[in-house]
Amino acid sequence: MPTRQHDAHRARSRGTAARQESLREHNLSLVLGHVLDADEPVSRADLAAATGLTRATVSSLVDLLVESRVLAEGEPVQTGSAGRPAVPLAPARGTLVGLGLEVNVDYLGVRAVDLTGDVLADVVVPGDHHASDPTAVLTVLAEHADRVVRDLEARKVDVVGASLALPGLVDPTADRLRLAPNLGWSGVDLSALRDLPPFDRLGLTVANEANLAAVAEWRARRRALPSFLYVSGEVGIGGALVHDNAVFGGVRGWSGELGHTTVEPDGPACACGARGCLEAYAGKDALMVAAGLDRLGPVEDLCARADDGDERALASFARGGWALGVALSSFVNLTDVAHVVLGGVYGPLAPYLHAHVTAELETRVLTAPRPDLVVEPSVAGTEAAMTGGAVEVLRGLAANPSSRVTA
Amino acid sequence: MPTRQHDAHRARSRGTAARQESLREHNLSLVLGHVLDADEPVSRADLAAATGLTRATVSSLVDLLVESRVLAEGEPVQTGSAGRPAVPLAPARGTLVGLGLEVNVDYLGVRAVDLTGDVLADVVVPGDHHASDPTAVLTVLAEHADRVVRDLEARKVDVVGASLALPGLVDPTADRLRLAPNLGWSGVDLSALRDLPPFDRLGLTVANEANLAAVAEWRARRRALPSFLYVSGEVGIGGALVHDNAVFGGVRGWSGELGHTTVEPDGPACACGARGCLEAYAGKDALMVAAGLDRLGPVEDLCARADDGDERALASFARGGWALGVALSSFVNLTDVAHVVLGGVYGPLAPYLHAHVTAELETRVLTAPRPDLVVEPSVAGTEAAMTGGAVEVLRGLAANPSSRVTA
Repeated sequence: MPTRQHDAHRARSRGTAARQESLREHNLSLVLGHVLDADEPVSRADLAAATGLTRATVSSLVDLLVESRVLAEGEPVQTGSAGRPAVPLAPARGTLVGLGLEVNVDYLGVRAVDLTGDVLADVVVPGDHHASDPTAVLTVLAEHADRVVRDLEARKVDVVGASLALPGLVDPTADRLRLAPNLGWSGVDLSALRDLPPFDRLGLTVANEANLAAVAEWRARRRALPSFLYVSGEVGIGGALVHDNAVFGGVRGWSGELGHTTVEPDGPACACGARGCLEAYAGKDALMVAAGLDRLGPVEDLCARADDGDERALASFARGGWALGVALSSFVNLTDVAHVVLGGVYGPLAPYLHAHVTAELETRVLTAPRPDLVVEPSVAGTEAAMTGGAVEVLRGLAANPSSRVTA
Repeated sequence: MPTRQHDAHRARSRGTAARQESLREHNLSLVLGHVLDADEPVSRADLAAATGLTRATVSSLVDLLVESRVLAEGEPVQTGSAGRPAVPLAPARGTLVGLGLEVNVDYLGVRAVDLTGDVLADVVVPGDHHASDPTAVLTVLAEHADRVVRDLEARKVDVVGASLALPGLVDPTADRLRLAPNLGWSGVDLSALRDLPPFDRLGLTVANEANLAAVAEWRARRRALPSFLYVSGEVGIGGALVHDNAVFGGVRGWSGELGHTTVEPDGPACACGARGCLEAYAGKDALMVAAGLDRLGPVEDLCARADDGDERALASFARGGWALGVALSSFVNLTDVAHVVLGGVYGPLAPYLHAHVTAELETRVLTAPRPDLVVEPSVAGTEAAMTGGAVEVLRGLAANPSSRVTA
């Protein structure tokens, strides 16, 4: 049975090789993770102490990561009276990026973020995607992405991968958008998009925009906030419950649809087909229209009107904030979340909405008054889902570094 | 430095002993867990195969568990042509029980459940605990519990521990009930209860009634339903989100307060002080009163009226079911749960509520129509929180068997 023996031998060799490969991958990931998570540069000695690996192993892994432009060495620092000066290691700046893309109701965009958090490319194109054609919009998005990628590559920047944020429910396999009511999209096959450049080379993951924006928020706070509700205020209102440093997705990843919390069962019609959903009171369109403004205009117009004492603008904020407070109270009672982050257009609108929101929370949250119940604006910046998508791509690199690191 | 050496030696000895103790505890727990989780009796050989322990180790652990009356041996069965007949092992019947206690708005009770799920004692005392005195009610509960425990002990049954279910928010340390609106209790110190017999001997854990009822449901389905929302319909309406075989408690364990989901912001007053909460439409009191019945009477009276075509009874079900459907729709949109179990008084009421509930779900759930979205009655039986408390006590035994198993 020479063949079987031969096969068995090959399988054993492969097994050993696979285990060695897997150990190296594990150690690379461990070292890289420590540098990416650190608040300041670390030395090889710090890494050996933190990981339990030998100094020699750490050095060879760090050398690989530096050669692959994942980590960068700073100027040596003399730390003690004896020994060689320590070389500080930090994430490399401007070498590798994750690409975060987004289609939302009134814009689309592409953002490239490097390992230090620097934004190396940022394209946000306003547009009206109410009841739009998915193929047309996604083709335009791919063209923008391709232009950004070519430009980055011309600047010697490696694009590690791409992530697309959509304001709707993505099927668990991420091959199909099930529903995005405000775009008027349903049952959209996303596999064709993966055949377009640059995604034919880069690959593409697809996720809910609020979930990705929550990742950006979590990252922006350097993980100091392990549990919070991220509210994504756009034309639609998304939400993502982050619990113990992870997004709570539910059975299929369709959780967090805060915009479709019923505020008044017989309230105004919602794009989803139901009545009285939060979006119909407090989504961007609803807020602008109630104030007599163009729904496609910037929310800063609404703020300016309110600052001038315009009654319709003030009434729009009062109604929107009231509805948001009613929905958030139910959310707090159901999930016991104690920290609410207002993102998207709610960032600039938060000062106008805050008192109306908290008035409802103080009445309706079962455990109120709750000094620990915080509602505050996002710190993740505008189009946070694009940032979060890029962060997710780079987190994938940290989990699986050998895709970029060549021995 | 003899003292230091001596101390170091003692520390090493203690360390070794602790490790051996811990290993034995781990293996006991492993073996016991396999028997308790199995759908049918298992042999020592089955256990050795399932745990990876040697046959000799399994046998000595099983002997301990049998001597301690945790496991019982059945009649030997000849399984093959050769070897000794296999002795089937199963949880012992009638030897050890967990005690589940509950105070709810219209009853209190004590239930003792053994490792096979048999109920060895069951006391349910109807009462009116609206706006009641916590000390008086808890003293009565302790007296019932003490009587049950004495009776069990006279029957040579060991009571492993006790768990109390309360319809409110228990502080994370379980030393204080923060709030139970329908009892009119707030800030109740529970430490005095622990000084009363039988809790001075048995100890006592305290938890939210819906969370414990969900444990009973999960157990009754033999863990075949890893993710569901348990709705506890009583005077108040509790909820517990079970996700991946664990109750999602939130930051402080105060999640699942479905009864305080806002249905109509200007709706009827709720015991919590807010308006339009689900409880005010669909809690037991609300359903009974809307039908013109005594709120302390049995819900079967309401069913009988509806069966006779009584218009007020039918209208009460229509309004309650509508409100429950509105609240559940928001819950599904927020948490992506796809299986709703109606427990407590909703068990018998489910046939009367079902059409009204599903009409709202079909309109308001973002992903509707959803053939996979199931709403069905509980299978955990009445006063499920009492059963769930007993189950939790016995699960504690399985996690920490040496408390009962003496070498």
